[in-house]
Amino acid sequence: MATAITYEGKAKILTPTAEAGIFQVFFKDDATAFNAQKRGQIRGKGEINCTISSHLLQFLQNQGIPTHFRRQIAPNVMEVQALTMFALEVVVRNQAAGSLCRETGIPLGQELTPPLVEFYYKNDRLGDPLLTPDRLRLLNLATPEQVQTLVDLAQRVNGQLRCFFAECGILLIDFKLEFGWDDHGQVILADEISPDTCRLWLAQETDPVRRVVDKDRFRHDLGEVESAYQLVLERVLRQ
Amino acid sequence: MATAITYEGKAKILTPTAEAGIFQVFFKDDATAFNAQKRGQIRGKGEINCTISSHLLQFLQNQGIPTHFRRQIAPNVMEVQALTMFALEVVVRNQAAGSLCRETGIPLGQELTPPLVEFYYKNDRLGDPLLTPDRLRLLNLATPEQVQTLVDLAQRVNGQLRCFFAECGILLIDFKLEFGWDDHGQVILADEISPDTCRLWLAQETDPVRRVVDKDRFRHDLGEVESAYQLVLERVLRQ
Ligand SMILES: Nc1ncnc2c1ncn2[C@@H]1O[C@H](COP(=O)(O)OP(=O)(O)O)[C@@H](O)[C@H]1O
Ligand SMILES: Nc1ncnc2c1ncn2[C@@H]1O[C@H](COP(=O)(O)OP(=O)(O)O)[C@@H](O)[C@H]1O
Ligand SMILES: [Mg+2]
Ligand SMILES: [Mg+2]
Repeated sequence: MATAITYEGKAKILTPTAEAGIFQVFFKDDATAFNAQKRGQIRGKGEINCTISSHLLQFLQNQGIPTHFRRQIAPNVMEVQALTMFALEVVVRNQAAGSLCRETGIPLGQELTPPLVEFYYKNDRLGDPLLTPDRLRLLNLATPEQVQTLVDLAQRVNGQLRCFFAECGILLIDFKLEFGWDDHGQVILADEISPDTCRLWLAQETDPVRRVVDKDRFRHDLGEVESAYQLVLERVLRQ
Repeated sequence: MATAITYEGKAKILTPTAEAGIFQVFFKDDATAFNAQKRGQIRGKGEINCTISSHLLQFLQNQGIPTHFRRQIAPNVMEVQALTMFALEVVVRNQAAGSLCRETGIPLGQELTPPLVEFYYKNDRLGDPLLTPDRLRLLNLATPEQVQTLVDLAQRVNGQLRCFFAECGILLIDFKLEFGWDDHGQVILADEISPDTCRLWLAQETDPVRRVVDKDRFRHDLGEVESAYQLVLERVLRQ
């Protein structure tokens, strides 16, 4: 499954290692938003996101969720199991935010009970569109059994992460996961879990701008981007 | 359920009549597209769409599908049963076109087997966004039982209309339906069925521009809009 080709994405660079089936993931400081129409840098983000992701993936692994995480070999480099990726973004929403609010008119922050699990087509050219179950099937992006597995895993990850972040004094509003499968067809959690891929609000803070400690600070030019990422890092490492 | 208030939409004007629960629907020549960003007029459209809709709704009624149609009282005026409307557009797709192609990359014209039944939130402010089953439920736009009824009715309408148009030498690519419910909670097909709300291609024509005999001629400035609507009218009335 490992290939000799290095893949550079918007936030990370994947390179094969000497060991078959193992990739190194370099986390970049580059930040993009709105389907890469907005571009910038967040100083220190590579190291912060690599460290947060390593910590959270290890935590989930300990809770029995299969992940691609192997070890962190440098502040901004993670070693992972090479997988064949689903062209899907699995989004879990505990409170309404972002495109859900824009597309439904549901007010920002409304509790979603049970949490919403949504699928998006991971396709930059098409702008990562929302998928209905029928469209997902039509595009053959996963079998019905795989979809069920993805929903189950996403819900379990949410249960674990919500508690984890609660102990950090942080509300997990929503987040995006990516999954792949290994040579045995096992579905495995991959990619990253970081302030780039989660919406995180300080639990004690009600001010709608001050409470935000995730990429929305960059997306909407709220300022203090680096310090927000740094705060999340510190609280995550304290657990 | 009838109210004293006249409602003017983008394509029609609804006015209560002296008879309780009965509305008159005036079909306008006004045409809009892309969530009303594009506006214009199609000469004769009001009369053509009213006549086509009357014919098709009467046909469906005869096939046992409950519709709001009562009678056509002028070339551009239809009398209908006043209903409480679902804030939903129910779209049935037999071949891929429009937003489905844009959002999934599925090639134009690809056969969809079985036909796709999709729900959109009828909300001009939000741009009539696609709904997943979860979002539909979250927004309380219909009960699960009503959703099942809407899917069943939409599929039955599709079966009937597809055959009807086939006999006209026309392919029914996709179409949009709107439904309401009466005082007894019965779900009833409402609104219109016309070249404004259906994608229709001449079966004998392979040229991707010449085959189009629906509002896409207006949307994409393909010319000969009026004559396309006129052709559909003539073929529908011949059945
Ligand atoms: N374990 C893995 N095996 C193979 N590919 C992975 C793995 N984990 C993540 N990826 C993929 O590597 C890329 C990560 O880089 P990123 O910069 O986030 O890319 P993108 O801009 O496509 O989101 C993504 O395409 C992601 O799906
Ligand atoms: N039988 C009915 N009872 C009540 N409302 C109806 C009925 N049939 C259609 N409608 C509604 O009347 C309006 C029709 O006008 P139209 O110009 O197409 O409006 P719009 O611009 O909202 O689509 C729509 O809102 C439609 O849902
Ligand atoms: Mg990515
Ligand atoms: Mg309308």
